[in-house]
Amino acid sequence: MIFFGVKLIIGFIGFGEVASTLTKKLQNFDVDVITSLNNRSEKSKQLAIKSNIKVFKTYGEIAKLSDILISSNNPKSALDVAKKYGKLTKRIFLDLNNISPKTAENINEIFQNEKGDNTRNNFINGAIIGRITNENHKIIVSGIKLKEIIALNDYGLNITPISENIEDVSKLKMLRSMYTKGLTAILFETFDVASSLGLSDELFDILSLTEGKNFKKNAKSRINSLAISNERKFQEMEEVLTFLEEINNDKNKTFDSTMTIATKNKFKDFIK
Amino acid sequence: MIFFGVKLIIGFIGFGEVASTLTKKLQNFDVDVITSLNNRSEKSKQLAIKSNIKVFKTYGEIAKLSDILISSNNPKSALDVAKKYGKLTKRIFLDLNNISPKTAENINEIFQNEKGDNTRNNFINGAIIGRITNENHKIIVSGIKLKEIIALNDYGLNITPISENIEDVSKLKMLRSMYTKGLTAILFETFDVASSLGLSDELFDILSLTEGKNFKKNAKSRINSLAISNERKFQEMEEVLTFLEEINNDKNKTFDSTMTIATKNKFKDFIK
Repeated sequence: MIFFGVKLIIGFIGFGEVASTLTKKLQNFDVDVITSLNNRSEKSKQLAIKSNIKVFKTYGEIAKLSDILISSNNPKSALDVAKKYGKLTKRIFLDLNNISPKTAENINEIFQNEKGDNTRNNFINGAIIGRITNENHKIIVSGIKLKEIIALNDYGLNITPISENIEDVSKLKMLRSMYTKGLTAILFETFDVASSLGLSDELFDILSLTEGKNFKKNAKSRINSLAISNERKFQEMEEVLTFLEEINNDKNKTFDSTMTIATKNKFKDFIK
Repeated sequence: MIFFGVKLIIGFIGFGEVASTLTKKLQNFDVDVITSLNNRSEKSKQLAIKSNIKVFKTYGEIAKLSDILISSNNPKSALDVAKKYGKLTKRIFLDLNNISPKTAENINEIFQNEKGDNTRNNFINGAIIGRITNENHKIIVSGIKLKEIIALNDYGLNITPISENIEDVSKLKMLRSMYTKGLTAILFETFDVASSLGLSDELFDILSLTEGKNFKKNAKSRINSLAISNERKFQEMEEVLTFLEEINNDKNKTFDSTMTIATKNKFKDFIK
Protein backbone atom coordinates (compact mmCIF):
# COMPACT_ATOMS: atom_id res chain seq x y z
CA MET A 1 0.00 0.00 0.00
CA ILE A 2 1.67 3.14 -1.20
CA PHE A 3 -0.08 5.61 1.09
CA PHE A 4 0.41 3.56 4.22
CA GLY A 5 1.05 5.60 7.34
CA VAL A 6 -0.05 8.99 6.02
CA LYS A 7 -3.51 10.44 5.92
CA LEU A 8 -4.44 10.51 2.28
CA ILE A 9 -5.90 13.77 0.93
CA ILE A 10 -8.12 13.56 -2.12
CA GLY A 11 -9.36 16.73 -3.77
CA PHE A 12 -12.19 17.13 -6.24
CA ILE A 13 -12.56 19.86 -8.81
CA GLY A 14 -16.24 19.63 -9.59
CA PHE A 15 -18.53 18.11 -6.99
CA GLY A 16 -21.44 16.39 -8.71
CA GLU A 17 -22.78 12.87 -8.55
CA VAL A 18 -19.44 11.21 -9.38
CA ALA A 19 -17.53 13.11 -6.67
CA SER A 20 -20.17 12.67 -3.99
CA THR A 21 -20.57 8.94 -4.69
CA LEU A 22 -16.80 8.32 -4.58
CA THR A 23 -16.54 10.45 -1.45
CA LYS A 24 -19.00 8.21 0.38
CA LYS A 25 -16.75 5.22 -0.34
CA LEU A 26 -13.52 7.02 0.56
CA GLN A 27 -14.93 8.21 3.88
CA ASN A 28 -15.00 4.62 5.14
CA PHE A 29 -11.21 4.90 5.24
CA ASP A 30 -8.65 7.25 6.70
CA VAL A 31 -9.00 9.86 3.97
CA ASP A 32 -9.60 13.60 3.92
CA VAL A 33 -11.79 14.66 1.02
CA ILE A 34 -11.59 18.32 0.07
CA THR A 35 -13.08 20.60 -2.57
CA SER A 36 -13.81 24.24 -3.41
CA LEU A 37 -17.26 25.53 -4.24
CA ASN A 38 -16.06 28.64 -6.01
CA ASN A 39 -18.44 29.26 -8.96
CA ARG A 40 -20.26 25.96 -8.41
CA SER A 41 -23.91 25.19 -8.90
CA GLU A 42 -26.43 25.06 -6.05
CA LYS A 43 -26.61 21.29 -6.57
CA SER A 44 -22.85 20.90 -6.04
CA LYS A 45 -23.04 23.02 -2.91
CA GLN A 46 -25.81 20.88 -1.49
CA LEU A 47 -23.92 17.68 -2.32
CA ALA A 48 -20.75 18.98 -0.65
CA ILE A 49 -22.65 19.97 2.50
CA LYS A 50 -24.36 16.57 2.64
CA SER A 51 -21.03 14.82 2.10
CA ASN A 52 -19.53 16.59 5.12
CA ILE A 53 -16.19 17.37 3.47
CA LYS A 54 -13.69 20.18 3.93
CA VAL A 55 -14.34 23.15 1.65
CA PHE A 56 -11.58 25.61 0.65
CA LYS A 57 -11.79 28.97 -1.07
CA THR A 58 -9.75 28.30 -4.19
CA TYR A 59 -9.03 25.38 -6.50
CA GLY A 60 -5.34 26.27 -6.26
CA GLU A 61 -5.40 25.38 -2.57
CA ILE A 62 -7.22 22.11 -3.32
CA ALA A 63 -4.66 21.15 -5.95
CA LYS A 64 -1.67 21.88 -3.72
CA LEU A 65 -3.07 20.07 -0.68
CA SER A 66 -4.17 16.93 -2.54
CA ASP A 67 -2.25 13.71 -2.94
CA ILE A 68 -4.70 12.86 -5.66
CA LEU A 69 -6.60 15.57 -7.50
CA ILE A 70 -9.69 14.36 -9.32
CA SER A 71 -11.17 16.43 -12.12
CA SER A 72 -14.88 15.57 -12.33
CA ASN A 73 -16.51 18.27 -14.39
CA ASN A 74 -17.39 17.78 -18.04
CA PRO A 75 -15.42 17.03 -21.22
CA LYS A 76 -15.42 20.66 -22.33
CA SER A 77 -13.69 22.09 -19.25
CA ALA A 78 -11.32 19.13 -18.79
CA LEU A 79 -8.35 20.63 -20.66
CA ASP A 80 -8.71 24.00 -18.93
CA VAL A 81 -8.84 22.46 -15.44
CA ALA A 82 -5.82 20.29 -16.23
CA LYS A 83 -3.84 23.31 -17.45
CA LYS A 84 -4.61 25.42 -14.40
CA TYR A 85 -4.33 22.89 -11.59
CA GLY A 86 -2.98 19.57 -12.87
CA LYS A 87 0.67 20.17 -12.14
CA LEU A 88 0.16 21.77 -8.73
CA THR A 89 -0.89 18.53 -7.12
CA LYS A 90 1.36 16.15 -5.19
CA ARG A 91 1.06 12.76 -6.79
CA ILE A 92 -1.70 12.10 -9.29
CA PHE A 93 -4.01 14.15 -11.46
CA LEU A 94 -6.98 11.90 -12.34
CA ASP A 95 -9.39 13.01 -15.04
CA LEU A 96 -12.88 11.46 -14.88
CA ASN A 97 -14.54 13.65 -17.51
CA ASN A 98 -15.09 11.15 -20.33
CA ILE A 99 -12.61 12.96 -22.51
CA SER A 100 -11.88 12.09 -26.14
CA PRO A 101 -8.57 10.47 -27.16
CA LYS A 102 -7.53 13.84 -28.62
CA THR A 103 -8.19 15.69 -25.34
CA ALA A 104 -6.32 12.97 -23.45
CA GLU A 105 -3.34 13.61 -25.72
CA ASN A 106 -3.59 17.37 -25.21
CA ILE A 107 -3.74 17.08 -21.44
CA ASN A 108 -0.88 14.60 -21.51
CA GLU A 109 1.33 17.17 -23.24
CA ILE A 110 0.95 19.52 -20.26
CA PHE A 111 2.45 16.87 -18.01
CA GLN A 112 5.27 15.95 -20.38
CA ASN A 113 6.45 19.36 -21.46
CA GLU A 114 8.74 20.47 -18.65
CA LYS A 115 11.12 17.55 -18.69
CA GLY A 116 10.05 15.81 -21.89
CA ASP A 117 10.12 12.77 -19.68
CA ASN A 118 7.21 10.40 -19.10
CA THR A 119 8.49 8.82 -15.89
CA ARG A 120 7.32 11.86 -13.95
CA ASN A 121 4.00 12.09 -15.76
CA ASN A 122 1.31 12.33 -13.06
CA PHE A 123 -1.66 12.30 -15.39
CA ILE A 124 -4.10 9.38 -15.19
CA ASN A 125 -6.99 9.13 -17.64
CA GLY A 126 -10.01 7.49 -16.03
CA ALA A 127 -13.54 6.60 -17.03
CA ILE A 128 -16.47 5.17 -15.15
CA ILE A 129 -18.06 2.07 -16.68
CA GLY A 130 -21.63 1.48 -15.58
CA ARG A 131 -23.69 3.99 -13.63
CA ILE A 132 -21.72 5.60 -10.81
CA THR A 133 -24.68 4.98 -8.49
CA ASN A 134 -24.61 1.26 -9.36
CA GLU A 135 -22.52 -0.66 -6.83
CA ASN A 136 -20.93 -2.67 -9.67
CA HIS A 137 -19.46 0.29 -11.53
CA LYS A 138 -15.78 0.16 -12.37
CA ILE A 139 -13.24 2.90 -12.97
CA ILE A 140 -10.87 2.03 -15.80
CA VAL A 141 -7.57 3.91 -15.92
CA SER A 142 -4.63 4.41 -18.24
CA GLY A 143 -1.37 6.30 -17.73
CA ILE A 144 2.14 5.83 -16.41
CA LYS A 145 1.38 5.80 -12.68
CA LEU A 146 -0.98 2.85 -12.71
CA LYS A 147 0.44 1.39 -9.51
CA GLU A 148 -0.18 4.56 -7.54
CA ILE A 149 -3.74 4.94 -8.72
CA ILE A 150 -4.80 1.33 -8.17
CA ALA A 151 -3.63 1.74 -4.57
CA LEU A 152 -6.99 3.51 -4.19
CA ASN A 153 -8.59 0.07 -4.30
CA ASP A 154 -7.44 -0.17 -0.68
CA TYR A 155 -9.62 2.86 -0.03
CA GLY A 156 -12.91 1.46 -1.26
CA LEU A 157 -12.71 2.29 -4.97
CA ASN A 158 -12.96 -0.24 -7.81
CA ILE A 159 -10.20 0.66 -10.24
CA THR A 160 -9.07 -1.52 -13.16
CA PRO A 161 -5.80 -0.67 -14.89
CA ILE A 162 -5.89 -0.83 -18.69
CA SER A 163 -2.44 0.24 -19.91
CA GLU A 164 0.24 2.91 -19.67
CA ASN A 165 -0.96 4.41 -22.93
CA ILE A 166 -2.84 7.53 -21.82
CA GLU A 167 -5.37 7.44 -24.67
CA ASP A 168 -6.49 3.84 -24.17
CA VAL A 169 -9.25 4.61 -21.69
CA SER A 170 -10.72 7.21 -24.05
CA LYS A 171 -10.46 4.81 -26.98
CA LEU A 172 -12.27 2.13 -25.02
CA LYS A 173 -15.05 4.58 -24.18
CA MET A 174 -15.36 5.40 -27.90
CA LEU A 175 -15.51 1.72 -28.85
CA ARG A 176 -18.05 1.14 -26.10
CA SER A 177 -20.21 3.97 -27.48
CA MET A 178 -19.97 2.52 -30.97
CA TYR A 179 -21.35 -0.76 -29.67
CA THR A 180 -23.94 0.45 -27.12
CA LYS A 181 -25.41 3.21 -29.28
CA GLY A 182 -25.57 0.89 -32.29
CA LEU A 183 -27.39 -1.63 -30.15
CA THR A 184 -29.81 1.06 -28.93
CA ALA A 185 -30.56 2.06 -32.52
CA ILE A 186 -31.24 -1.53 -33.57
CA LEU A 187 -33.43 -2.20 -30.54
CA PHE A 188 -35.41 0.94 -31.22
CA GLU A 189 -35.93 0.07 -34.88
CA THR A 190 -36.88 -3.56 -34.21
CA PHE A 191 -39.28 -2.92 -31.35
CA ASP A 192 -40.92 -0.05 -33.19
CA VAL A 193 -42.07 -2.60 -35.79
CA ALA A 194 -42.76 -5.34 -33.21
CA SER A 195 -45.07 -3.12 -31.19
CA SER A 196 -47.00 -2.12 -34.31
CA LEU A 197 -47.63 -5.86 -34.84
CA GLY A 198 -48.60 -6.41 -31.20
CA LEU A 199 -45.60 -8.73 -30.79
CA SER A 200 -43.31 -6.78 -28.44
CA ASP A 201 -43.77 -9.00 -25.39
CA GLU A 202 -43.36 -12.16 -27.45
CA LEU A 203 -40.20 -10.77 -29.04
CA PHE A 204 -38.76 -9.84 -25.64
CA ASP A 205 -39.47 -13.39 -24.50
CA ILE A 206 -37.79 -15.17 -27.40
CA LEU A 207 -34.80 -12.82 -27.44
CA SER A 208 -34.35 -13.31 -23.70
CA LEU A 209 -33.74 -17.00 -24.38
CA THR A 210 -30.49 -16.25 -26.16
CA GLU A 211 -29.63 -12.72 -24.99
CA GLY A 212 -29.31 -13.25 -21.24
CA LYS A 213 -31.27 -12.78 -18.07
CA ASN A 214 -31.64 -9.02 -17.80
CA PHE A 215 -32.19 -8.56 -21.50
CA LYS A 216 -35.72 -7.17 -21.28
CA LYS A 217 -34.91 -4.66 -18.56
CA ASN A 218 -31.72 -3.49 -20.28
CA ALA A 219 -33.33 -3.36 -23.71
CA LYS A 220 -36.27 -1.31 -22.45
CA SER A 221 -33.98 1.15 -20.75
CA ARG A 222 -31.97 1.50 -23.99
CA ILE A 223 -35.09 2.04 -26.08
CA ASN A 224 -36.42 4.67 -23.69
CA SER A 225 -33.07 6.41 -23.50
CA LEU A 226 -33.15 7.13 -27.22
CA ALA A 227 -36.27 9.21 -26.94
CA ILE A 228 -34.96 11.31 -24.06
CA SER A 229 -31.30 11.80 -24.90
CA ASN A 230 -31.08 11.37 -28.66
CA GLU A 231 -29.34 14.70 -29.23
CA ARG A 232 -26.52 13.89 -26.82
CA LYS A 233 -26.23 10.42 -28.36
CA PHE A 234 -26.11 11.94 -31.84
CA GLN A 235 -23.20 14.15 -30.73
CA GLU A 236 -21.45 11.16 -29.21
CA MET A 237 -21.74 9.32 -32.51
CA GLU A 238 -20.19 12.30 -34.28
CA GLU A 239 -17.28 12.02 -31.85
CA VAL A 240 -17.02 8.30 -32.54
CA LEU A 241 -16.86 8.97 -36.29
CA THR A 242 -14.09 11.54 -35.74
CA PHE A 243 -12.26 8.90 -33.73
CA LEU A 244 -12.65 6.37 -36.58
CA GLU A 245 -11.28 8.89 -39.08
CA GLU A 246 -8.24 9.42 -36.88
CA ILE A 247 -7.65 5.66 -36.75
CA ASN A 248 -8.00 5.44 -40.53
CA ASN A 249 -5.33 8.12 -40.84
CA ASP A 250 -3.07 6.51 -38.26
CA LYS A 251 -3.30 3.04 -39.75
CA ASN A 252 -3.47 4.19 -43.36
CA LYS A 253 -6.46 1.92 -43.80
CA THR A 254 -10.20 2.40 -44.14
CA PHE A 255 -12.37 0.69 -41.57
CA ASP A 256 -15.90 0.26 -42.82
CA SER A 257 -18.23 2.41 -40.71
CA THR A 258 -21.58 1.50 -42.28
CA MET A 259 -23.23 0.70 -38.95
CA THR A 260 -21.76 3.65 -37.09
CA ILE A 261 -22.94 6.11 -39.73
CA ALA A 262 -26.38 4.48 -39.74
CA THR A 263 -26.51 4.75 -35.94
CA LYS A 264 -25.69 8.46 -36.11
CA ASN A 265 -28.40 8.95 -38.74
CA LYS A 266 -30.86 6.98 -36.65
CA PHE A 267 -30.37 9.38 -33.76
CA LYS A 268 -30.49 12.39 -36.06
CA ASP A 269 -34.00 11.48 -37.21
CA PHE A 270 -35.22 11.91 -33.66
CA ILE A 271 -33.88 15.42 -33.16
CA LYS A 272 -36.72 17.86 -33.61
CA MET B 1 -53.84 -34.71 -22.29
CA ILE B 2 -55.43 -34.96 -25.68
CA PHE B 3 -53.63 -38.08 -26.89
CA PHE B 4 -54.16 -40.04 -23.68
CA GLY B 5 -54.79 -43.73 -24.15
CA VAL B 6 -53.68 -44.01 -27.78
CA LYS B 7 -50.19 -44.54 -29.10
CA LEU B 8 -49.24 -41.28 -30.73
CA ILE B 9 -47.75 -41.46 -34.23
CA ILE B 10 -45.50 -38.63 -35.33
CA GLY B 11 -44.24 -38.49 -38.90
CA PHE B 12 -41.39 -36.45 -40.27
CA ILE B 13 -40.98 -35.29 -43.86
CA GLY B 14 -37.29 -34.52 -43.94
CA PHE B 15 -35.03 -36.22 -41.44
CA GLY B 16 -32.11 -33.96 -40.61
CA GLU B 17 -30.79 -32.57 -37.34
CA VAL B 18 -34.13 -31.10 -36.22
CA ALA B 19 -36.07 -34.34 -36.80
CA SER B 20 -33.45 -36.59 -35.22
CA THR B 21 -33.07 -34.37 -32.14
CA LEU B 22 -36.83 -34.18 -31.58
CA THR B 23 -37.12 -37.95 -32.16
CA LYS B 24 -34.69 -38.61 -29.33
CA LYS B 25 -36.95 -36.66 -26.96
CA LEU B 26 -40.18 -38.25 -28.21
CA GLN B 27 -38.78 -41.77 -27.86
CA ASN B 28 -38.74 -41.36 -24.08
CA PHE B 29 -42.53 -41.55 -24.31
CA ASP B 30 -45.10 -43.90 -25.83
CA VAL B 31 -44.70 -42.54 -29.36
CA ASP B 32 -44.08 -44.11 -32.77
CA VAL B 33 -41.85 -41.95 -34.92
CA ILE B 34 -42.02 -42.67 -38.66
CA THR B 35 -40.48 -41.27 -41.84
CA SER B 36 -39.75 -42.08 -45.47
CA LEU B 37 -36.28 -41.90 -46.96
CA ASN B 38 -37.43 -41.63 -50.54
CA ASN B 39 -35.04 -39.24 -52.34
CA ARG B 40 -33.25 -38.33 -49.14
CA SER B 41 -29.58 -37.57 -48.61
CA GLU B 42 -27.10 -40.08 -47.25
CA LYS B 43 -26.93 -38.00 -44.06
CA SER B 44 -30.68 -38.29 -43.51
CA LYS B 45 -30.52 -42.05 -44.08
CA GLN B 46 -27.77 -42.42 -41.50
CA LEU B 47 -29.66 -40.27 -38.99
CA ALA B 48 -32.83 -42.35 -39.48
CA ILE B 49 -30.95 -45.62 -38.99
CA LYS B 50 -29.27 -44.28 -35.85
CA SER B 51 -32.61 -43.05 -34.54
CA ASN B 52 -34.11 -46.52 -34.84
CA ILE B 53 -37.45 -45.35 -36.29
CA LYS B 54 -39.94 -46.98 -38.67
CA VAL B 55 -39.26 -46.21 -42.32
CA PHE B 56 -41.99 -46.33 -44.99
CA LYS B 57 -41.76 -46.23 -48.76
CA THR B 58 -43.76 -43.10 -49.53
CA TYR B 59 -44.50 -39.76 -47.89
CA GLY B 60 -48.18 -40.35 -48.62
CA GLU B 61 -48.15 -43.29 -46.21
CA ILE B 62 -46.36 -41.21 -43.59
CA ALA B 63 -48.89 -38.40 -43.90
CA LYS B 64 -51.90 -40.73 -43.61
CA LEU B 65 -50.54 -42.69 -40.66
CA SER B 66 -49.43 -39.68 -38.60
CA ASP B 67 -51.38 -37.92 -35.89
CA ILE B 68 -48.91 -35.09 -36.26
CA LEU B 69 -46.98 -34.62 -39.48
CA ILE B 70 -43.88 -32.46 -39.13
CA SER B 71 -42.36 -30.83 -42.20
CA SER B 72 -38.66 -30.29 -41.47
CA ASN B 73 -36.98 -29.60 -44.79
CA ASN B 74 -36.08 -26.10 -45.87
CA PRO B 75 -38.02 -22.87 -46.58
CA LYS B 76 -37.98 -23.44 -50.35
CA SER B 77 -39.74 -26.82 -50.35
CA ALA B 78 -42.14 -25.96 -47.51
CA LEU B 79 -45.07 -24.92 -49.71
CA ASP B 80 -44.71 -27.91 -51.99
CA VAL B 81 -44.61 -30.41 -49.09
CA ALA B 82 -47.65 -28.75 -47.51
CA LYS B 83 -49.59 -28.92 -50.78
CA LYS B 84 -48.83 -32.60 -51.37
CA TYR B 85 -49.15 -34.06 -47.88
CA GLY B 86 -50.52 -31.47 -45.45
CA LYS B 87 -54.18 -32.35 -45.71
CA LEU B 88 -53.70 -36.13 -45.70
CA THR B 89 -52.67 -36.22 -42.07
CA LYS B 90 -54.95 -36.93 -39.11
CA ARG B 91 -54.65 -34.01 -36.72
CA ILE B 92 -51.89 -31.49 -37.18
CA PHE B 93 -49.53 -30.40 -39.93
CA LEU B 94 -46.59 -28.67 -38.25
CA ASP B 95 -44.15 -26.71 -40.37
CA LEU B 96 -40.67 -26.21 -38.87
CA ASN B 97 -38.96 -24.77 -41.97
CA ASN B 98 -38.40 -21.16 -40.90
CA ILE B 99 -40.85 -19.95 -43.50
CA SER B 100 -41.54 -16.29 -44.27
CA PRO B 101 -44.86 -14.64 -43.30
CA LYS B 102 -45.85 -14.77 -46.99
CA THR B 103 -45.22 -18.53 -47.25
CA ALA B 104 -47.14 -19.06 -44.00
CA GLU B 105 -50.09 -17.26 -45.58
CA ASN B 106 -49.82 -19.34 -48.77
CA ILE B 107 -49.70 -22.63 -46.87
CA ASN B 108 -52.59 -21.50 -44.71
CA GLU B 109 -54.76 -21.03 -47.80
CA ILE B 110 -54.39 -24.73 -48.62
CA PHE B 111 -55.94 -25.62 -45.30
CA GLN B 112 -58.72 -23.07 -45.50
CA ASN B 113 -59.87 -23.59 -49.06
CA GLU B 114 -62.19 -26.57 -48.84
CA LYS B 115 -64.56 -25.28 -46.23
CA GLY B 116 -63.44 -21.64 -46.08
CA ASP B 117 -63.59 -22.29 -42.37
CA ASN B 118 -60.71 -21.84 -39.97
CA THR B 119 -62.03 -24.07 -37.17
CA ARG B 120 -60.85 -27.13 -39.10
CA ASN B 121 -57.51 -25.60 -40.03
CA ASN B 122 -54.86 -28.16 -39.05
CA PHE B 123 -51.86 -26.05 -39.98
CA ILE B 124 -49.46 -24.98 -37.24
CA ASN B 125 -46.54 -22.67 -38.03
CA GLY B 126 -43.56 -23.47 -35.82
CA ALA B 127 -40.01 -22.17 -35.40
CA ILE B 128 -37.12 -23.26 -33.27
CA ILE B 129 -35.53 -20.56 -31.11
CA GLY B 130 -31.97 -21.33 -30.07
CA ARG B 131 -29.93 -24.16 -31.47
CA ILE B 132 -31.89 -27.39 -31.75
CA THR B 133 -28.96 -29.22 -30.16
CA ASN B 134 -29.04 -26.86 -27.18
CA GLU B 135 -31.17 -28.30 -24.37
CA ASN B 136 -32.75 -24.87 -23.80
CA HIS B 137 -34.19 -24.46 -27.29
CA LYS B 138 -37.87 -23.63 -27.57
CA ILE B 139 -40.40 -24.25 -30.33
CA ILE B 140 -42.73 -21.31 -30.76
CA VAL B 141 -46.01 -21.98 -32.56
CA SER B 142 -48.94 -20.09 -34.04
CA GLY B 143 -52.19 -21.36 -35.58
CA ILE B 144 -55.73 -22.31 -34.62
CA LYS B 145 -55.00 -25.67 -32.99
CA LEU B 146 -52.65 -24.41 -30.31
CA LYS B 147 -54.11 -26.67 -27.63
CA GLU B 148 -53.48 -29.82 -29.63
CA ILE B 149 -49.90 -28.93 -30.46
CA ILE B 150 -48.88 -27.89 -26.94
CA ALA B 151 -50.07 -31.31 -25.77
CA LEU B 152 -46.70 -32.42 -27.18
CA ASN B 153 -45.12 -30.85 -24.10
CA ASP B 154 -46.29 -34.01 -22.32
CA TYR B 155 -44.09 -35.91 -24.78
CA GLY B 156 -40.82 -34.20 -24.00
CA LEU B 157 -40.98 -31.22 -26.34
CA ASN B 158 -40.72 -27.56 -25.27
CA ILE B 159 -43.47 -25.75 -27.16
CA THR B 160 -44.58 -22.17 -26.45
CA PRO B 161 -47.83 -20.94 -28.00
CA ILE B 162 -47.72 -17.45 -29.49
CA SER B 163 -51.14 -16.77 -31.00
CA GLU B 164 -53.82 -18.14 -33.36
CA ASN B 165 -52.56 -15.83 -36.10
CA ILE B 166 -50.67 -18.20 -38.42
CA GLU B 167 -48.11 -15.59 -39.54
CA ASP B 168 -47.04 -14.49 -36.06
CA VAL B 169 -44.29 -17.08 -35.65
CA SER B 170 -42.77 -16.06 -39.00
CA LYS B 171 -43.03 -12.40 -38.10
CA LEU B 172 -41.26 -13.03 -34.81
CA LYS B 173 -38.47 -14.85 -36.64
CA MET B 174 -38.12 -11.85 -38.98
CA LEU B 175 -37.99 -9.43 -36.06
CA ARG B 176 -35.49 -11.66 -34.33
CA SER B 177 -33.29 -11.64 -37.46
CA MET B 178 -33.51 -7.87 -37.64
CA TYR B 179 -32.17 -7.64 -34.11
CA THR B 180 -29.60 -10.48 -34.07
CA LYS B 181 -28.08 -9.72 -37.47
CA GLY B 182 -27.92 -6.01 -36.66
CA LEU B 183 -26.13 -6.88 -33.45
CA THR B 184 -23.70 -9.13 -35.33
CA ALA B 185 -22.91 -6.33 -37.78
CA ILE B 186 -22.25 -3.84 -34.97
CA LEU B 187 -20.10 -6.31 -33.06
CA PHE B 188 -18.09 -7.06 -36.16
CA GLU B 189 -17.53 -3.39 -36.94
CA THR B 190 -16.61 -2.45 -33.36
CA PHE B 191 -14.23 -5.32 -32.70
CA ASP B 192 -12.56 -4.90 -36.06
CA VAL B 193 -11.40 -1.48 -34.85
CA ALA B 194 -10.75 -2.63 -31.28
CA SER B 195 -8.46 -5.43 -32.37
CA SER B 196 -6.48 -3.06 -34.61
CA LEU B 197 -5.86 -0.98 -31.46
CA GLY B 198 -4.94 -4.04 -29.39
CA LEU B 199 -7.94 -3.40 -27.14
CA SER B 200 -10.26 -6.35 -27.90
CA ASP B 201 -9.85 -8.13 -24.60
CA GLU B 202 -10.25 -4.92 -22.61
CA LEU B 203 -13.39 -4.04 -24.59
CA PHE B 204 -14.86 -7.51 -23.98
CA ASP B 205 -14.17 -7.01 -20.28
CA ILE B 206 -15.83 -3.63 -19.93
CA LEU B 207 -18.82 -4.57 -22.09
CA SER B 208 -19.30 -7.74 -20.06
CA LEU B 209 -19.93 -5.54 -17.02
CA THR B 210 -23.16 -4.24 -18.49
CA GLU B 211 -24.01 -6.80 -21.20
CA GLY B 212 -24.39 -9.96 -19.13
CA LYS B 213 -22.49 -13.04 -18.16
CA ASN B 214 -22.04 -14.90 -21.43
CA PHE B 215 -21.47 -11.75 -23.43
CA LYS B 216 -17.93 -12.56 -24.54
CA LYS B 217 -18.76 -16.09 -25.67
CA ASN B 218 -21.91 -15.02 -27.50
CA ALA B 219 -20.27 -11.99 -29.06
CA LYS B 220 -17.32 -14.02 -30.34
CA SER B 221 -19.61 -16.61 -31.86
CA ARG B 222 -21.59 -13.81 -33.60
CA ILE B 223 -18.44 -12.18 -34.94
CA ASN B 224 -17.12 -15.47 -36.27
CA SER B 225 -20.47 -16.38 -37.81
CA LEU B 226 -20.34 -13.32 -40.04
CA ALA B 227 -17.20 -14.47 -41.77
CA ILE B 228 -18.52 -17.96 -42.45
CA SER B 229 -22.18 -17.39 -43.28
CA ASN B 230 -22.35 -13.82 -44.51
CA GLU B 231 -24.05 -14.73 -47.79
CA ARG B 232 -26.91 -16.52 -46.06
CA LYS B 233 -27.22 -13.66 -43.58
CA PHE B 234 -27.29 -11.17 -46.45
CA GLN B 235 -30.19 -13.10 -48.00
CA GLU B 236 -31.98 -13.19 -44.67
CA MET B 237 -31.68 -9.42 -44.42
CA GLU B 238 -33.19 -9.08 -47.88
CA GLU B 239 -36.13 -11.13 -46.62
CA VAL B 240 -36.40 -8.91 -43.56
CA LEU B 241 -36.52 -5.82 -45.78
CA THR B 242 -39.29 -7.39 -47.90
CA PHE B 243 -41.15 -8.07 -44.66
CA LEU B 244 -40.75 -4.41 -43.60
CA GLU B 245 -42.07 -3.22 -46.95
CA GLU B 246 -45.13 -5.42 -46.53
CA ILE B 247 -45.75 -3.92 -43.10
CA ASN B 248 -45.37 -0.42 -44.51
CA ASN B 249 -48.01 -1.27 -47.10
CA ASP B 250 -50.31 -2.90 -44.57
CA LYS B 251 -50.08 -0.06 -42.08
CA ASN B 252 -49.86 2.70 -44.66
CA LYS B 253 -46.89 4.06 -42.77
CA THR B 254 -43.15 4.14 -43.29
CA PHE B 255 -41.02 2.54 -40.63
CA ASP B 256 -37.49 3.84 -40.71
CA SER B 257 -35.15 1.01 -41.72
CA THR B 258 -31.79 2.78 -41.54
CA MET B 259 -30.19 0.11 -39.37
CA THR B 260 -31.65 -2.84 -41.26
CA ILE B 261 -30.43 -1.52 -44.60
CA ALA B 262 -27.01 -0.82 -43.09
CA THR B 263 -26.91 -4.37 -41.71
CA LYS B 264 -27.69 -5.81 -45.13
CA ASN B 265 -24.96 -3.65 -46.68
CA LYS B 266 -22.53 -4.72 -43.97
CA PHE B 267 -23.02 -8.36 -44.91
CA LYS B 268 -22.84 -7.55 -48.60
CA ASP B 269 -19.34 -6.16 -48.22
CA PHE B 270 -18.16 -9.57 -47.10
CA ILE B 271 -19.45 -11.50 -50.08
CA LYS B 272 -16.61 -12.10 -52.44
